[in-house]
Amino acid sequence: MTERLVVSPAELFGDGVFETVHLRPDGPWLLDEHLDRLARSAGMLELTLPPRTEIAERVSAAVTGFPGAEGALRIICTREAMHVTVGAVPAAAVRERRDGIRLISAEAGRPAPWSLSGAKILSYATNFAARRWARDRGADDLLWLTPEGYALEGPTASLVWLAGDELGTVPPDEAAILPGTTVARLLDVAGSAGLRPVRRMITIDELRTVDGIWLASALRGLAEAISVDGQPRDRSAWTPRLLALLGYVDLRGWSAADPQQAG
Amino acid sequence: MTERLVVSPAELFGDGVFETVHLRPDGPWLLDEHLDRLARSAGMLELTLPPRTEIAERVSAAVTGFPGAEGALRIICTREAMHVTVGAVPAAAVRERRDGIRLISAEAGRPAPWSLSGAKILSYATNFAARRWARDRGADDLLWLTPEGYALEGPTASLVWLAGDELGTVPPDEAAILPGTTVARLLDVAGSAGLRPVRRMITIDELRTVDGIWLASALRGLAEAISVDGQPRDRSAWTPRLLALLGYVDLRGWSAADPQQAG
Repeated sequence: MTERLVVSPAELFGDGVFETVHLRPDGPWLLDEHLDRLARSAGMLELTLPPRTEIAERVSAAVTGFPGAEGALRIICTREAMHVTVGAVPAAAVRERRDGIRLISAEAGRPAPWSLSGAKILSYATNFAARRWARDRGADDLLWLTPEGYALEGPTASLVWLAGDELGTVPPDEAAILPGTTVARLLDVAGSAGLRPVRRMITIDELRTVDGIWLASALRGLAEAISVDGQPRDRSAWTPRLLALLGYVDLRGWSAADPQQAG
Repeated sequence: MTERLVVSPAELFGDGVFETVHLRPDGPWLLDEHLDRLARSAGMLELTLPPRTEIAERVSAAVTGFPGAEGALRIICTREAMHVTVGAVPAAAVRERRDGIRLISAEAGRPAPWSLSGAKILSYATNFAARRWARDRGADDLLWLTPEGYALEGPTASLVWLAGDELGTVPPDEAAILPGTTVARLLDVAGSAGLRPVRRMITIDELRTVDGIWLASALRGLAEAISVDGQPRDRSAWTPRLLALLGYVDLRGWSAADPQQAG
């Protein structure tokens, strides 16, 4: 990525919030929902955002002339400035949407009272470290667990499962995790596919018995777990159907090679 | 601070390491020790630093013409670039060195297996959130505890205590905390003041009974705890002596007003 930003030194300390939005031919997908979450995250950091109309105008200007079928729009707000960037969907995201991921589960530690785990913050070093930890163990991504063994989320994604006709995810407020934008839309449209949307806690032991497991995020859409903790899983026939429900079909994106991007 | 840096968007995600060095008339204080720690932190992030000679040359160039009696040198390394900045010591650091701090203790949560708590990383949003949490409770800074009640460190500083002739700090490897550069020097020179340097774990209950408590960091030097969890403490006669031992005397720095700086 050759885009350059001019920032102050203080902006390099991860003290801000961001959103990654899937950019489609008809514009940024779920932009309103992402801006709602940006405002929620900013509140948790006591960070003042520019007026919403100004954010929307900056987004509009940034996506004008967007040439591809899909892209990545990032809205980044530090305490000093807003930066809006448009780039390619990372190659790894497109690959994981197509081929699935090897998932490893691990206890996430216990959050401190001032934890920002429910906010989408720029301080991503630990998320990246968690991913490296997973890769060192032969996995592609991670599923965080509570000390009691309940599933939470991935470092950059929400958990989704299918069990019978139950299309489930973890309730963000109860679990103190980030409310997923992609998964919220998926559960909203589940009924049209004859599925029953459910928000509840689920243990890793129960999760091993369900019919399908995915990580949901804006750029990957849905990445199916093709193994969990080294145990292979059959691929679900629902993966292409759910991706189609969300509009991740016939997308030929910008080619991309940046190896590491915030999700 | 008006200094501007040119960065890539990926550099805003806190995925890097840094050092803050106290800049004195005779140059950056404890520069070698800070560069050692920078290399150690980078190793924990699997981040490749520029060659040490290149870092030293950039530092040399940055501090040339430094006009004040004291300043703040920051060496910031993301995965893409190194940024070296020179600025004022924040006014709050000078004030806390002089007037002390109201300290509040709180359990730090339990670290995940991929925790970077022993590295000085750019992802500082949670450290700033911890400080806001402390300030909302009438304190200036925080002392993190283990679930068992052992003292660890502050969000941007090491713990130091004086008990009789014992000048103590927490052993960084055993506690999985950042090895403090300022406190290491303090313990090295303790003998010259007739004090006995000790590295050991200490509970918050025992800590309440000691003769003096400080947070040590590069810019503040030593900030004495004038209260702990709301209980006032008498000021120690050792505070000016220890500051003098470390060379924090007769410093008239650049005036500064930036309200929030990484420590």
